[in-house]
Formats: sequence, C-alpha cells, structure tokens
Amino acid sequence: MEMGIVVGRVTATRKDDRLVGTKLLITQPIGVDGTPLDSQPIITVDTVGAGIGEQVIFVKGSMASRAIQNKDAPVDAAIVGIIDSME
Amino acid sequence: MEMGIVVGRVTATRKDDRLVGTKLLITQPIGVDGTPLDSQPIITVDTVGAGIGEQVIFVKGSMASRAIQNKDAPVDAAIVGIIDSME
Amino acid sequence: MEMGIVVGRVTATRKDDRLVGTKLLITQPIGVDGTPLDSQPIITVDTVGAGIGEQVIFVKGSMASRAIQNKDAPVDAAIVGIIDSME
Amino acid sequence: MEMGIVVGRVTATRKDDRLVGTKLLITQPIGVDGTPLDSQPIITVDTVGAGIGEQVIFVKGSMASRAIQNKDAPVDAAIVGIIDSME
Amino acid sequence: MEMGIVVGRVTATRKDDRLVGTKLLITQPIGVDGTPLDSQPIITVDTVGAGIGEQVIFVKGSMASRAIQNKDAPVDAAIVGIIDSME
Repeated sequence: MEMGIVVGRVTATRKDDRLVGTKLLITQPIGVDGTPLDSQPIITVDTVGAGIGEQVIFVKGSMASRAIQNKDAPVDAAIVGIIDSME
Repeated sequence: MEMGIVVGRVTATRKDDRLVGTKLLITQPIGVDGTPLDSQPIITVDTVGAGIGEQVIFVKGSMASRAIQNKDAPVDAAIVGIIDSME
Repeated sequence: MEMGIVVGRVTATRKDDRLVGTKLLITQPIGVDGTPLDSQPIITVDTVGAGIGEQVIFVKGSMASRAIQNKDAPVDAAIVGIIDSME
Repeated sequence: MEMGIVVGRVTATRKDDRLVGTKLLITQPIGVDGTPLDSQPIITVDTVGAGIGEQVIFVKGSMASRAIQNKDAPVDAAIVGIIDSME
Repeated sequence: MEMGIVVGRVTATRKDDRLVGTKLLITQPIGVDGTPLDSQPIITVDTVGAGIGEQVIFVKGSMASRAIQNKDAPVDAAIVGIIDSME
C-alpha cells in the first residue's frame, strides 16, 4: 500500500454503472514525513469515510477491488485506512 | 484510477480479434489542475463515449478488462468515466 | 496498452518450456509522435506478426497472457496490434 | 520482489476490517549495497516478524495477498523475508 | 518481460515457508546494448539455472508465480530465460 493525502474529489456524471455511488477522491502520494511526493495523483475509491486533507492508506491494482462493495467494479485504487500516525 | 486527457486515436487493422470494434484512444495522464504530466501516454479502450480533448478517468491493469464488453480481451487500460469537475 | 516500436529480437535457448516457439521482440515505448520515450525496453511476445521497425500496440501484466496461445505461459507483455496511424 | 529497509510503522484506527491485527510497516526500497533508493516508500504487511531497521524482502501486487493470513484482505505489499546477506 | 543481468544473490533464513528452497537472485534491468539501466534491482526467483553475470529474461507480477514450482508461493518476479543474443 502507499501513504497519501486526499487533495480533492472527482465528479463524473457519465461513468461505468458500477462506479455509481462511489466516492472518488484524488489522493497524492506522500513520504514518511507527510510531504507530497513528486508522483502522479491517483483517483481512489473511498471505503473508510476519508475527507479532504486526511492522510490515508491506499491500495492499488486488482487488490483494490476487494475493498469496495461492488466486487465487479472496474477499480484499481482504493483508500483502506486513515492514518493516525507514522512513526 | 488516473486522470487523463484524450489526445488522439490509434488505428490498427492487424490486431487481436478481440480488439476488433473497440475504440482505442490515446490518453495523456494529467494533474489535478488539468495540465498534462510528464508520463507515458496510454492506449485506453473507451467504454463511455469519450472524445478527443475530454478529461477522463481511466483504470489500468487487469481491472480494465472488467470495463469492456468482451471480458476475454487482452486489455490493460480503459476509460471508465468522463470528468465533470475536479475540486 | 502502450505504443512502441520493435527494435530487436531476443534469442534464448534455455528458457521456460512454455516459451518455446514464441517470438520474443524487444519493444521500445514511443510517444504520440512516434519518438522513443526514455523508458525501459520491454520483451514482448509477438501475436500479430510484427517485425523490426514496426509501430505496435502492446499490453502488459497478467492480461498479456490472454493474447498468447499457451494460456499458462509466464508472460507479462505481448504485442496485440500493429499501428496504422495515430492521429 | 524488492529489497527494502523497514523505516517506520503506520497506525490506523479506522481501516478495512480485514486489516485489523496486521502490522503495517513502512519499507523504503534499497539498492544492492543497502543504500535507500530515491523511490516511494511502501506500506507493507509484515508476515515474518520484521522490525525497524531490518533489511527485508517484500512482494508487491496481487501476489502479496498470498503471504498474509486473511486471504481476502485488500493488500498489495507484504514482507516475506528478512535478509541475512546480499552478495 | 524485461532484460536483466544477475548481479547477486540474497540469503534469507527467516522467510515465507513457500520460499524455502528457491534461489533468490538480484537482477538489474539492462538496455538493448546490455548496459545496466538506472532502475531498481529486482529479487527474482531463478527457474532456469541462471548464474551471476548472466543476461536473463525475467517476468514480473502475478505471471511470475506461474514460472515457479510452488504455484502458491508469494512471488512477483522470476527468471524465465537466459539470453543468448539480442539483435
């Protein structure tokens, strides 16, 4: 998994039916000290009630689809935890 | 998933049979502000009626094959949404 | 999928049995304008009769194994189309 | 797999149920000489009793879920060995 | 797949049971001309009898697990061929 900070939200009216009702959050990967890394932002499906500005754990690839309710959805990134602390 | 902008279309007469009839769009990853990132363009299968110049959500890897009609096609990237807004 | 240009061929006498008879082509990722990108060359299994110098579409990851005849072969990249044009 | 050094631990109270009880370690990829690489730190599930400062072998992607006890957990990185030596 | 050169070997006494008996080789990705690339070294499971200094073909991701004997092992990279020539 990776550490990230939620920096925004994506709205998409026209989308795959199985994505309807999902909360699509833009997550920027961060380093151990919490600073944003120079890597690509990811659209993640929220599964834990994350909000803008929160530091999160997200999973990528086919394993991400395990985290969401609709197991058939075409999803490759999901937030699976909210970080309390990194030490 | 990632954010991208559709920048072109690929035509291929000789191709895997299961790709016949698919619309193959070239998608350039973009950042939160919509500017193209310095990363590799991706050939994505369109599943939502996307067109050149539109900002889209695309999924990569094995999950992409879930988005397309022919579930057996050798596809690793698909457009699954058209972005209304990023905020 | 990605766009690439076939730049060479790999010969390997000692290899996994399931790769015997496959044509292993070295493919360099290219941009929309056809220029080689500064990214790692990939060994792709040819499934469409591609040759050196041709621009191709290739798929990576587990989906690549769908493209080849031996469905059990340990393959993570395959050429699935020859590009006529990018526009 | 990749070589890494365990540099920290992540605590997350709110998380996917299947991650409860897992030890989430932050692992920084390292080179052959043991120096940290300039690549993104990974949150890995520990499966071998690794501790901070230890050099480890970690696996990424869907194969990582094989290493952990809950086979259904949404996990894409796991520590599967502690390095004695690299030579 | 990728081209690489075997640059070392990893020893790990404490490891996932299913990795016992595997030969874990450190493989550095190389370019078409055989020069090492500036990318991360990979720990690959040898399946073809490769040795230090040899140029090899390796497969990454879930497909790598197809190459090894224990089909349940948590493995994401395997050497599947020894390169005779690249032309």
